Amino acid sequence: MKDLDDIQAVMATLGTQAKDAAAELAFAPAEQKRKALEAAADAVWARRAEILEANEKDMAFGAEKALSPAMMDRLKLTEDRIQGIVDGLRAVAAQDDPVGEVLTEWDMDSGLHIQRVRTPLGVVGVIYESRPNVTADAGALCLKSGNAVILRGGSESFNSSGAIHACLVDGLRAAGLPEAAIQLVPTRDRAAVSEMLAMTDTIDVIVPRGGKGLVGLVQREARVPVFAHLEGIVHIYIDAAADPEKALKVVMNAKTRRTGICGAAECLLIHRSLVDTIGQGVIRALIDAGVEVRADAALQKVPGTVPASAEDWGREYLDTIIAARVVDDVDAAIAHIRKYGSHHTDCILTEDDAVAARFFQRLDSAILMRNASTQFADGGEFGMGAEIGIATGKMHARGPVGAAQLTSFKYLVTGDGAVRG
Amino acid sequence: MKDLDDIQAVMATLGTQAKDAAAELAFAPAEQKRKALEAAADAVWARRAEILEANEKDMAFGAEKALSPAMMDRLKLTEDRIQGIVDGLRAVAAQDDPVGEVLTEWDMDSGLHIQRVRTPLGVVGVIYESRPNVTADAGALCLKSGNAVILRGGSESFNSSGAIHACLVDGLRAAGLPEAAIQLVPTRDRAAVSEMLAMTDTIDVIVPRGGKGLVGLVQREARVPVFAHLEGIVHIYIDAAADPEKALKVVMNAKTRRTGICGAAECLLIHRSLVDTIGQGVIRALIDAGVEVRADAALQKVPGTVPASAEDWGREYLDTIIAARVVDDVDAAIAHIRKYGSHHTDCILTEDDAVAARFFQRLDSAILMRNASTQFADGGEFGMGAEIGIATGKMHARGPVGAAQLTSFKYLVTGDGAVRG
Repeated sequence: MKDLDDIQAVMATLGTQAKDAAAELAFAPAEQKRKALEAAADAVWARRAEILEANEKDMAFGAEKALSPAMMDRLKLTEDRIQGIVDGLRAVAAQDDPVGEVLTEWDMDSGLHIQRVRTPLGVVGVIYESRPNVTADAGALCLKSGNAVILRGGSESFNSSGAIHACLVDGLRAAGLPEAAIQLVPTRDRAAVSEMLAMTDTIDVIVPRGGKGLVGLVQREARVPVFAHLEGIVHIYIDAAADPEKALKVVMNAKTRRTGICGAAECLLIHRSLVDTIGQGVIRALIDAGVEVRADAALQKVPGTVPASAEDWGREYLDTIIAARVVDDVDAAIAHIRKYGSHHTDCILTEDDAVAARFFQRLDSAILMRNASTQFADGGEFGMGAEIGIATGKMHARGPVGAAQLTSFKYLVTGDGAVRG
Repeated sequence: MKDLDDIQAVMATLGTQAKDAAAELAFAPAEQKRKALEAAADAVWARRAEILEANEKDMAFGAEKALSPAMMDRLKLTEDRIQGIVDGLRAVAAQDDPVGEVLTEWDMDSGLHIQRVRTPLGVVGVIYESRPNVTADAGALCLKSGNAVILRGGSESFNSSGAIHACLVDGLRAAGLPEAAIQLVPTRDRAAVSEMLAMTDTIDVIVPRGGKGLVGLVQREARVPVFAHLEGIVHIYIDAAADPEKALKVVMNAKTRRTGICGAAECLLIHRSLVDTIGQGVIRALIDAGVEVRADAALQKVPGTVPASAEDWGREYLDTIIAARVVDDVDAAIAHIRKYGSHHTDCILTEDDAVAARFFQRLDSAILMRNASTQFADGGEFGMGAEIGIATGKMHARGPVGAAQLTSFKYLVTGDGAVRG
């Protein structure tokens, strides 16, 4: 590694090494990658004391910098959380290998047999903030999908990420895979981020994980493709044909299970016919659970609500607050969501199939739900084992991004001397 | 439409109209889109005299500008070529509608049923050169896939494209679809191209169709995603285990059937053991067919070859020229293609399954072929009905881009009051 002060040179070296590793990884046998991930899991558990020690340094640094309690919590590692990292690595190891999977195949009259098979993207850049476990999750998913990865963790989690990364390298070494398959930017210097965003020759896609500030910066400035969501402005619409019990249960879960995740509900739309029935009941239950309900004029008659202002529509609180408003019908709900949504996750509560179909057809969020909590918006809950993030764009990856979506494809065409007429 | 001199305003209007049309098209019934394409085909045939007249104006303009014979040929329309356009429109009309197609679906223990269904990308921008038929092909594929399209044809084909576009609008009108679903930039001003490349708010993807100059410009300057290939530096490797007859037949077809298309072979790699047998035979046949064979030192002993220079490796001739060189084995062929290829189409001639598998696995071109002519690199020959272009990038679309690849997807998740624990 070059002098760490010369960030451009450091990053260029990481980029070249990643590209070389990616060329080898592209055809690494599934078993070898599985072995590397199992060995990494073993190493994380064996070296947990070391990881906790590194994490203590980060926590001390965080306390000195007076990080918020929420950030300190995200940063903190415990033996339980390390067990979670180990489990995650083993879960990805156990997944089917996407590389080489035949997506579809067919024959042509010309005598050609055509197969479409998965192939890795190449080099993935992951830029994240304080959670040190992203080091393991992102490293594992990229390796599984045959991609090399350059990880740039937050400066707060510098030591923790470094200790976890060392274990991933142990795994690569044990399996005889190139160590540069998973690289961690070896400096806290923020200039490394700007460098990554412009490394069009060596990085194929960037995945930012973190707050709106980081994601917005990456989306604005990256010159390589980005898989991300800026915000989860999640709507739930209670339709005239909603089942009262399901509505109450789903709304409460969607808002209150965890308020800080991107699948948490941020805006409640209630059909006008339900204001005095289900609507009141749901709003009261939210208030009783400690949620501040910012209501439009029609809903302000429910005791305990506070008046919503124009800024409350299309707002991501990530907190115990929800906006609530009355709509005339499903089309008005759709219109509201089109105007204020963020194409992340939106939900309808209804027993009417035709209304649900209309909601599913006329909206284009990455995830549309019916009679289910929006908190399910997660790769694990979708059965993907793990996710590197959730994407709201329409290019390539969308929704929870697991190993399969970190691949592209190629066509394999076989003839028996076929020529074109 | 605003004053045509204010290009920025003109393009902004096209963009807004396209976005509005896309919102409607996204859930337009398959039958309505099919009807529009059939009606457009009828209109093209009914108004063929008008189209030919417009084309004569373009041909006169082209002659004045002293366009090359190849460009004049691409520009020229005849009744036969118009029949081809009509057939193309009907072929796309008859294809299955990709929008709403369930790509995969599964159940989770939590009670969720998850579907992944195709959804349109939104607005496609197509920038092309002299071929007026691209107007119909691109317009049809975008409509089929539920996307609005902004077409920017070459200034040479301005009148022809305008006349064809009028027929597409006839079709949209007949089917009751928004006319702005297929818009043609109504001015020859080249500033329209730069505008399109920066319309990140209204254009979701740009497809450039044309020479390296145009495609390179779009790839360098576009701020929206691009589906394209810059060059087709197509290699054919004749392996030690190649069948002599197939090798001869396939190489001749790959080089000479049409030299100006992106799937035409540009470089021949010959296994060292075959120099005096198949190698000589193939090279002689090429020379006899009028192809200039630029040979490396080992192949220069074949009479009629000319010496290759370093610039001949990785070069796209699009002409009756081919580079030829000897390699030691399949790995050397792979190394050459990795170094000089363009990830478009590369081919191996061999009867050895293990060698073919190695070639398929270790190379990552959009299309890899075995014992088949590279001239098959075409959406029609892949059974896609038509293609809007061929892409060599790895993001989203790859290889021949038909209607299906002009779509993204969304997740439709159904529960029965499911909440997350």
